[in-house]
Amino acid sequence: MDELKIIEKIISEYMPKEDGLQKTIFEGMNYAVSAGGKRIRPILMYETYKLFGGNGDVIKPFMAAIEMIHTYSLVHDDMPCVDNDDMRRGKPTTHIVYGETMGLFVGDGLLNLAFETIANGMDYVDTADSKQVEAYKEAFKYISKCAGSFGMLAGQVVDKESEDKEDIDLDTIMYLYEKKTGELLRASMVVGAILAGADKTDVDIIEKVATNVGIAFQIQDDILDVIGTEEELGKPIGSDERNNKSTYVAHVGLEESKEEVKRLTNEAIELLSEIDGKNEFLEEFLTFLINRKK
Amino acid sequence: MDELKIIEKIISEYMPKEDGLQKTIFEGMNYAVSAGGKRIRPILMYETYKLFGGNGDVIKPFMAAIEMIHTYSLVHDDMPCVDNDDMRRGKPTTHIVYGETMGLFVGDGLLNLAFETIANGMDYVDTADSKQVEAYKEAFKYISKCAGSFGMLAGQVVDKESEDKEDIDLDTIMYLYEKKTGELLRASMVVGAILAGADKTDVDIIEKVATNVGIAFQIQDDILDVIGTEEELGKPIGSDERNNKSTYVAHVGLEESKEEVKRLTNEAIELLSEIDGKNEFLEEFLTFLINRKK
Repeated sequence: MDELKIIEKIISEYMPKEDGLQKTIFEGMNYAVSAGGKRIRPILMYETYKLFGGNGDVIKPFMAAIEMIHTYSLVHDDMPCVDNDDMRRGKPTTHIVYGETMGLFVGDGLLNLAFETIANGMDYVDTADSKQVEAYKEAFKYISKCAGSFGMLAGQVVDKESEDKEDIDLDTIMYLYEKKTGELLRASMVVGAILAGADKTDVDIIEKVATNVGIAFQIQDDILDVIGTEEELGKPIGSDERNNKSTYVAHVGLEESKEEVKRLTNEAIELLSEIDGKNEFLEEFLTFLINRKK
Repeated sequence: MDELKIIEKIISEYMPKEDGLQKTIFEGMNYAVSAGGKRIRPILMYETYKLFGGNGDVIKPFMAAIEMIHTYSLVHDDMPCVDNDDMRRGKPTTHIVYGETMGLFVGDGLLNLAFETIANGMDYVDTADSKQVEAYKEAFKYISKCAGSFGMLAGQVVDKESEDKEDIDLDTIMYLYEKKTGELLRASMVVGAILAGADKTDVDIIEKVATNVGIAFQIQDDILDVIGTEEELGKPIGSDERNNKSTYVAHVGLEESKEEVKRLTNEAIELLSEIDGKNEFLEEFLTFLINRKK
């Protein structure tokens, strides 16, 4: 897929060279980022940018930055004091390869590098053009808020605190979905729109589309999880047979969950059609994301 | 001290309210930041800003941000997988009070909040005035680089990797001092100068002053450590009697170290006098910092 190659190239341009006395951290940062993944966030950002006619370079540092932020959150989530995961995408996690101390620093380094990259990205902004400066400002505000303790990190905190509870109410589950997965997906699309100079109405539409995508994406995750478990067990399982009510599917049931994914997807596609521009790739990508089978 | 009260008030304005489902992380972030400290970095930033005639509000978010970055580095350094410290400044460390998982998230939250604060600080910039925008850009670039894997974090990495070695050469020790302590002290003064609109020559002078201050500050730390140990033991100790050659003092000896602190201080004060403006508080504060007895 050509699209993915373009994205990989852009990200790699912003990753550090592995030299200097501190080179271990650079190796760890590159290891974590190059461990793969679908690059969903930079793709969404890039395609939304193009939807609104964006064709500059200012999008590139933001694309790299959102992938760095996503990766840092995975590195820290895998740490022994959070999820204690040894493997991710078939490879040993960063703290397994580089040790726990370096795992911590690698995450810190990636989060910081995201903002260094955004700072350097200001070189692509014509500082004499206040419209460009305003767009940069709004994009920087948006992405930084979505990543932090009012955004994604809030989801990680509530997720961790919910772990020991038997039943989690649906409101908390929706909060979790919107924050933990949803915030960065939303930031991806909204930043793409803002940097392309989309007007307020269109940015609001994109925000709603992205919110739907985030929630549907997460419910689809639950659905795939249940179907996978059913296939393993060789028989269907009801929501009440699951360990606890910690997912959307466990609360509302499998069929209704599928309906909800469909509803959210259709609403998103309909909202997208209100926008003047057209980006078929984006529509197809959203549909693919939401309806994916794995 | 009135100065400290002003600084404390500015920092507190940017700290989160403790509500929302994720309020534990906010409590932890506020705990870590309010645990005290001398607020050296925001004071240096503020005074350098005033030295160059700065009198706007744009300095405030940067002052709060540098203290957040400093605090995050302490929270993560205290974690079991780094220094495993239970107490700091007479209080239990953040991960002791809130647990290890939350310690990790609190550090992440503070680093991210620093950049959210800087992003929101762009509201104080007149986006139609390209000179202001340029100054903001340079300040943002500078502080983000000093905090990350090319700056302070590089020092933390090399520090940790040096721990198990018997002898560390003087070059590595100087690198450590310049990075781990020096980078944020340097960022404080340089960002103050840049945001006040200081010209390139003056920013370069401030950079040299701050570098001297950072190194002298750290050597003074070593000296106080040796003197403290001597007082405890009740007899003087030579550098070769120390556990390993991991400090400047252990390499060059106590008396020569004191000389070096004096030399660096005098050079810094002399450099400062080349600047047109005058800030007696800053001169006194630097002398106090470097010659402090504890």
